[in-house]
Amino acid sequence: MSESSGRCDTSALLSDYYQFTMADAYYRLGMEEVAVFEFFVRRLPDTRNFLVAAGLEQVLDYLESLSFGADEIDWLRRTERFSPEFLERLESFRFTGHVFAIPEGTVFFASEPVLRVEAPLPEAQIVESRIVNLLHYQTMIASKAARIRLAAPSAELIDFGMRRAHGAEAACLASRASYIAGFDGTATAEAARRFGIPVLNTMAHSFVLAHDLETHALRNFASYQARDLVLLIDTYDMSRGAARAARLARELRQQGVLVKGVRIDSGDLVIEARRVREILDENGCEDVRIFASGNLDEYAVEALQAARAPIDAYCIGTRLAVSEDAPALDCAYKLHQYAGRPRRKRSQWKESYPGPRQVYRQLDPHGRIARDVIGCSDEPIEGKPLLQEVMVFGRRTCTPPALSEVRCYCAEQLATLPVPLRVLEHVAQPPTKVSARQHALAEEVDQMPS
Amino acid sequence: MSESSGRCDTSALLSDYYQFTMADAYYRLGMEEVAVFEFFVRRLPDTRNFLVAAGLEQVLDYLESLSFGADEIDWLRRTERFSPEFLERLESFRFTGHVFAIPEGTVFFASEPVLRVEAPLPEAQIVESRIVNLLHYQTMIASKAARIRLAAPSAELIDFGMRRAHGAEAACLASRASYIAGFDGTATAEAARRFGIPVLNTMAHSFVLAHDLETHALRNFASYQARDLVLLIDTYDMSRGAARAARLARELRQQGVLVKGVRIDSGDLVIEARRVREILDENGCEDVRIFASGNLDEYAVEALQAARAPIDAYCIGTRLAVSEDAPALDCAYKLHQYAGRPRRKRSQWKESYPGPRQVYRQLDPHGRIARDVIGCSDEPIEGKPLLQEVMVFGRRTCTPPALSEVRCYCAEQLATLPVPLRVLEHVAQPPTKVSARQHALAEEVDQMPS
Repeated sequence: MSESSGRCDTSALLSDYYQFTMADAYYRLGMEEVAVFEFFVRRLPDTRNFLVAAGLEQVLDYLESLSFGADEIDWLRRTERFSPEFLERLESFRFTGHVFAIPEGTVFFASEPVLRVEAPLPEAQIVESRIVNLLHYQTMIASKAARIRLAAPSAELIDFGMRRAHGAEAACLASRASYIAGFDGTATAEAARRFGIPVLNTMAHSFVLAHDLETHALRNFASYQARDLVLLIDTYDMSRGAARAARLARELRQQGVLVKGVRIDSGDLVIEARRVREILDENGCEDVRIFASGNLDEYAVEALQAARAPIDAYCIGTRLAVSEDAPALDCAYKLHQYAGRPRRKRSQWKESYPGPRQVYRQLDPHGRIARDVIGCSDEPIEGKPLLQEVMVFGRRTCTPPALSEVRCYCAEQLATLPVPLRVLEHVAQPPTKVSARQHALAEEVDQMPS
Repeated sequence: MSESSGRCDTSALLSDYYQFTMADAYYRLGMEEVAVFEFFVRRLPDTRNFLVAAGLEQVLDYLESLSFGADEIDWLRRTERFSPEFLERLESFRFTGHVFAIPEGTVFFASEPVLRVEAPLPEAQIVESRIVNLLHYQTMIASKAARIRLAAPSAELIDFGMRRAHGAEAACLASRASYIAGFDGTATAEAARRFGIPVLNTMAHSFVLAHDLETHALRNFASYQARDLVLLIDTYDMSRGAARAARLARELRQQGVLVKGVRIDSGDLVIEARRVREILDENGCEDVRIFASGNLDEYAVEALQAARAPIDAYCIGTRLAVSEDAPALDCAYKLHQYAGRPRRKRSQWKESYPGPRQVYRQLDPHGRIARDVIGCSDEPIEGKPLLQEVMVFGRRTCTPPALSEVRCYCAEQLATLPVPLRVLEHVAQPPTKVSARQHALAEEVDQMPS
């Protein structure tokens, strides 16, 4: 990513190689008419009842800035599979198409188009791999984070996932996606800087271990990091650590310094949180909050909430950043129309619907989602169309919303989820149907020779 | 990553924020003596009998090049938690420590130190998060890829994982790690460029769908991409696609062009591969190979091999790049010694052993691993010590080996695996033991006041 904008400045070659060989063939064949591609998730993982769209801004950044450097073109040349004309065209390549998308933070379901690209075929083809790469990851993480938020509606949630996220970009984008879905902050400095997300400061076991005595470690950290102080108390013995933290908190209060919390990172968190709460309260530290961490996810959080463990904040790391129970979504970016002619793939178990599509969302009287109808993009169907025009001729139609706005919008979206879909357990039926005209169009396309 | 070297040029702030607040406190406390940290995997996932070390070169690149830019230091300043002295020190910050590590491509087991950092405490602390981030991902992917290689010892294996890998860096590093573990190539252009990995060219369904007729699509692709031609035949009807590919292959042969293979990406791959093989053979295309793709992993590959499906090459995407059955490793980077005094964490279920350690590998008469003894770094134990000195005072001790050499070494390493550990199913006992002196040292450390 670039230094200050949050853009992902990756090589234009971060793509499947075949996108370039196919694009070369398209140009040579004169196949440059408008293609319509759509990104959608074929099926939801067994452990998801809904998804939350995220990653659009990074896609639009990518499309606006995509160009090929001399060294990139030179590498392609050296692979000896490209025409000189194609390589010359790459020198001035820009994405010039239109993009329609459902806004970041929107709740959606299987088969629904999330993003639609309308562009000259070679352009729409070349951008496939990176579009999928960007939408897939953030959507997966936002969807996971939303489940954690639903499991603990009023707790503080902090992203701790950087070290085991899959590489640098995932680490930063996990913070962004989880913040959209309702997290309150991150421990990742770079994500805080790039996206303006609140950063949590705490301390590690190594700080305690580097001192001869735990009590000196706590005291030393407090003396230099007094603001929003969260003390780690489980390095040796949690109860003893809690008592030491309580004593320190009382002392510091007399100096006008407030200890924000203690962090517990091991053992049975229900038992430990209760014991620690007791020790803190007995020592007059009712205002010191308990932060829990260590292999947490929505299932653990739900269990801790159900057990009324006195935990105020959850620090969620690995299982969020890798979406551990569903580390990939079965998503696709498929050609739905070329040169005005609807297309659909009929490969077994991987069929798609033809033509440009739209999602029409119908709400019930309580403002909850009653039904999503997936229809043709120009079909007169009741409900709010979810896909909006976000890019015309390769340029954004409006400035990106602030991340805090997206976060508020996402909270509103989660509130529109029907009650049965808000649970962690799997619900068989999504509230979607495909319009009769879509079905008819699919049949029509199937009748054509192929 | 930088344009040409394969380095990961990420911000120095790609780290947990607390590393910096702790480092500031260390400096102010004068705690700058040498700390020994070790990276290890606490427990293996249930579906792994061994791991393959990977990611060391990216760690060494990171340590050699780590420095803080003015804008990074400025952001830290604006968070208002740092002393002016600390921020000034960051301006000239360099990693000056020593690193010991087991070579990339080495097979290893739970609890074994994979990398040891010996550096002034603040330096060793600051580099924690990114070291873990880099070693964790590539080790996880190399370990997954090795299982796929063991499941199909002589098949061609190609990484197809870019689009669903978690972000840009993961996409490229997955190609690298899987290549080390025995894959033959990648579909990711950028990974091929950065790391010199052979690149596979094929075609997508969209190319077929953009044409009115499948047969025109195959012919058109072949006419512009004749080298290493792999035709996709399952867009509409696999048998018909196979017959068309066979006819085209016969025609092209007369023009001196050889079709390398056909790719099947849907349906029951055992049935489809047999049917396609038959159609190809009936048409005199015995030399056209079958490439299979679509939700493959080591379990699917093993089943296809067991069923003797006539598949010559496996294209493995998502389930490799996200290590789907085990998308994270329970790894840690822990303080083992500070200022000459051994340390260990005693948090419940997360205990670690104190002091700098070494792994002594003992082979049986057939050259297979008989036992790994985890002992103190200076302990006279039989066997080959796995950790080697790779960095002194912040500089590599030797030039990085070529990736192809690492790949050969890894193949040799896989050959040293005892037969029971080569299976996909879980084996309860790893061949490791902890030396008596390590146990004694742990007890000794536990006796000290904390």
